[in-house]
Amino acid sequence: MGLLVVGSIGVDYIETPFDKIDNALGGSTTYIALAASYFTGPISIVGVVGDDFNKDHIKMLEEHNIDLEGLQIVQGAKTFRYGCRYHYDLNVRDSLYTELNVFEKFNPIIPEKSRKSSFVILGNIAPLLQENVLSQLINPKFIVCDTMNYWIDRTKEELIKVLKKVNVLIINDSEARLLSNEPNLIKAARIISEMGPKYLVIKKGEHGALLFGDNTIFSAPAYPMENIFDPTGAGDAFAGGFTGYLNKNRDFTFDNLKRAVIYGSVMASFCVEKFSTKGLENLSFLEIHNRFIEFRELSSFN
Amino acid sequence: MGLLVVGSIGVDYIETPFDKIDNALGGSTTYIALAASYFTGPISIVGVVGDDFNKDHIKMLEEHNIDLEGLQIVQGAKTFRYGCRYHYDLNVRDSLYTELNVFEKFNPIIPEKSRKSSFVILGNIAPLLQENVLSQLINPKFIVCDTMNYWIDRTKEELIKVLKKVNVLIINDSEARLLSNEPNLIKAARIISEMGPKYLVIKKGEHGALLFGDNTIFSAPAYPMENIFDPTGAGDAFAGGFTGYLNKNRDFTFDNLKRAVIYGSVMASFCVEKFSTKGLENLSFLEIHNRFIEFRELSSFN
Repeated sequence: MGLLVVGSIGVDYIETPFDKIDNALGGSTTYIALAASYFTGPISIVGVVGDDFNKDHIKMLEEHNIDLEGLQIVQGAKTFRYGCRYHYDLNVRDSLYTELNVFEKFNPIIPEKSRKSSFVILGNIAPLLQENVLSQLINPKFIVCDTMNYWIDRTKEELIKVLKKVNVLIINDSEARLLSNEPNLIKAARIISEMGPKYLVIKKGEHGALLFGDNTIFSAPAYPMENIFDPTGAGDAFAGGFTGYLNKNRDFTFDNLKRAVIYGSVMASFCVEKFSTKGLENLSFLEIHNRFIEFRELSSFN
Repeated sequence: MGLLVVGSIGVDYIETPFDKIDNALGGSTTYIALAASYFTGPISIVGVVGDDFNKDHIKMLEEHNIDLEGLQIVQGAKTFRYGCRYHYDLNVRDSLYTELNVFEKFNPIIPEKSRKSSFVILGNIAPLLQENVLSQLINPKFIVCDTMNYWIDRTKEELIKVLKKVNVLIINDSEARLLSNEPNLIKAARIISEMGPKYLVIKKGEHGALLFGDNTIFSAPAYPMENIFDPTGAGDAFAGGFTGYLNKNRDFTFDNLKRAVIYGSVMASFCVEKFSTKGLENLSFLEIHNRFIEFRELSSFN
């Protein structure tokens, strides 16, 4: 059974202390779908680009068994563009420009055949758009949701409405603190869980991730990265690996969600090793499996 | 076989957002020895106090099978006193006062019977004093060392001399970055390991701890604390649990060091639940064991 991914698709300029790249493929949908594509398929994406969108990007996505029927290509319009520069401390970046272009009036239209999708991941877009997507679906069974500080600050009420309907919320630690208005992450998780999501994943970057649910907590380690080349998309790659793995086996026990968190971490670790989506374009299942084993060796004791 | 602990002993004033306490027992030696006392004994401590030092503190330490022969009590002088106030975010504290008193001229003298100690932990004191302690020992086999930003900033050369002789260095993440002059913790660990210590533990507070050695990394989770009452002494409690456990079974394989890191984390988690040393004064082995199991459940997956 397929997976539906809705979010942004864009073209990025990225500058790190090591190198820079322009006209690179970006957007939450892209990273999520690519990371998920190693676990399940076909993956249907819904998004919008302009007619300047590089055909090589389309070809690459299709080669990953990603169904682009829901990709609106607006003639005479430009794709969403974003530019940023990372500091020496890669946890900090400056936005250089944000040109919304076609994304400004994005109206997600779910293709007929995808309306029956039972498994959907809502990438980081406005909560009203996430709500709009959900309203087009016929009886979705499992909904994974991402968001960010921007939406928590500006559209908290709309976001909370969406949260009532989702099964898993994936956010980072600062977003969890902001959403709950509580500095202690364990307390914050309880407050957010009461907003609706049965499971909550809090990503902590170089410190790993926490999974909350079933009155249990799972602490996942971070992969020890000596050379982070480009942190862009790591959170989306995590969400893609997590959701793709769950979509494959549809086992929603806490034990299997723990494995999904590790597969999410695995995909994020591959993502940051190269520029843009390149770290997610040419992986083998053996590489992914071996890194999963490395995560286990990293954190096991008896 | 006993364990020798050398460090500071003091009297603390502690203010948190929840409560405050004055004339509380403090100092690195105290926390280390109490935490270690649940694993091994007798523990010999070497330190200095004034004649104002509370006899109840002495009694409590003795009840934990802590040998005080090496405790110098200087007549007519005052004990080291420290006062601090924690912010709402308990990761931040302001020092209110530091009165070194007898600690200013502390000259550690190792009692005759302790000079043959093969297992020693050097608490957070000046590197020259740590060196002084080591020079009095006859053939020490296993040396664990703590330090802090203050000594790295002011006495780096002396510290590096000590590091050549120690088996395990225990520091926190900001200290590791400062000592190595490298923001990436994995690279920082490699640089520090080259300074001498065969094993390195980097504590990351609410994010757990990392153990480096034998070309391997172990990532230990943090105990999910909803209510940290007083963070004072957590790092020393960690060092005490770690060293006490190792001293008990003298198994220096990486697998056993991993367990030691977890026992260190267990003792730190108990420490912060109450004011001053109170969280370490009345524990049962069952409580400690159960929390060890909780750490395993928190981080295991397959």
